[in-house]
Amino acid sequence: MKLQLALDLVNIPEAIAVVEEVQSYIDIVEIGTPVVINEGLHAVKAIKDAFPSLQVLADLKIMDAGAYEVMKASEAGADIITVLGATDDSTIKGAVEEARKNGKQILVDMINVKNLEQRAREIDALGVDYICVHTGYDLQAAGENSFEQLRVIKSVVTRAKTAVAGGIKLATLPEVIAASPDLVIVGGGITGHANKAGAAAEMKQLIAAR
Amino acid sequence: MKLQLALDLVNIPEAIAVVEEVQSYIDIVEIGTPVVINEGLHAVKAIKDAFPSLQVLADLKIMDAGAYEVMKASEAGADIITVLGATDDSTIKGAVEEARKNGKQILVDMINVKNLEQRAREIDALGVDYICVHTGYDLQAAGENSFEQLRVIKSVVTRAKTAVAGGIKLATLPEVIAASPDLVIVGGGITGHANKAGAAAEMKQLIAAR
Repeated sequence: MKLQLALDLVNIPEAIAVVEEVQSYIDIVEIGTPVVINEGLHAVKAIKDAFPSLQVLADLKIMDAGAYEVMKASEAGADIITVLGATDDSTIKGAVEEARKNGKQILVDMINVKNLEQRAREIDALGVDYICVHTGYDLQAAGENSFEQLRVIKSVVTRAKTAVAGGIKLATLPEVIAASPDLVIVGGGITGHANKAGAAAEMKQLIAAR
Repeated sequence: MKLQLALDLVNIPEAIAVVEEVQSYIDIVEIGTPVVINEGLHAVKAIKDAFPSLQVLADLKIMDAGAYEVMKASEAGADIITVLGATDDSTIKGAVEEARKNGKQILVDMINVKNLEQRAREIDALGVDYICVHTGYDLQAAGENSFEQLRVIKSVVTRAKTAVAGGIKLATLPEVIAASPDLVIVGGGITGHANKAGAAAEMKQLIAAR
């Protein structure tokens, strides 16, 4: 089980500072969609250049032009690129083919996918690397979470690794770990702590104990 | 009926050069998703600064954090910001509220929405400014277009303006105009011409003749 740090509300220097603090405890750094929108793929390049030994995920949430966007993110140094589960199969196929060419991986974000079980089956068959259940900010605010969704995809996905994201904190991490995802994505649960390294270390320890 | 130029495969200096050529013939300049991913909102700011009299649309394709992303795009100078029809209602509501605060507009992109008629009705009730049918690159490659989808939303949308995007060229523009959208979005149909100003001028003339 891997731990991914999602960076959403930082600029590039702030992102580098946070990763410096917690780099010993995380496997993957995510350049979140808000950072991509503000700074573009320059943010991905800056983090990969600063931390070449960490995997970098570019949270592009691709909805169209799958091959093109994966090519650009690959050039910027991303190791994993996200595509939306709500997009069409041709976009996902284009993304997967381009990722294979470049030795990169595709994570499909199932945010706001309605027919989760059926869509997870379909996407699993397209050869993606990760399928990720994700309760976004706006639905976290409405009290939703992804734990039940994780159980749903775990029951149908046979090829891809599974991931979970959305509001995971130290207090809820044991419940997440019990459902055995391959990848746990934490944002504010680490970056919202005064002692970020301490929070990340505790999370890493809980995950390693499994 | 307005004409929007979508810029997708350019960097910032190239975008400025294209807009200089065609600015007399277009109403809105779109900073397309690929440009946003490559350059971030810096591209929106650069175009708005260079062409303050044109409306600038930031094609963020928002899937989450609606209010936050609209706030950032507004700060960068965007006049219209896009949200995905595939997202949840709370994201659209957050985007609309934030847009109202800043005197901005929201265009909802219906790309890859399956239940188009029902979803267009729901989104129309949320008070968005435009509802846009859109056949993306990856499905244009599969031979699809948005003309039938435009007729579907025209039959149910009562409050929002309607827009159409995806592969529209001079040859297909008359068919699009006949369906009376409020906004026609053209990318390669202008940028793919050796004489971009000529193509844009002809399109503007066809639209004005209605």
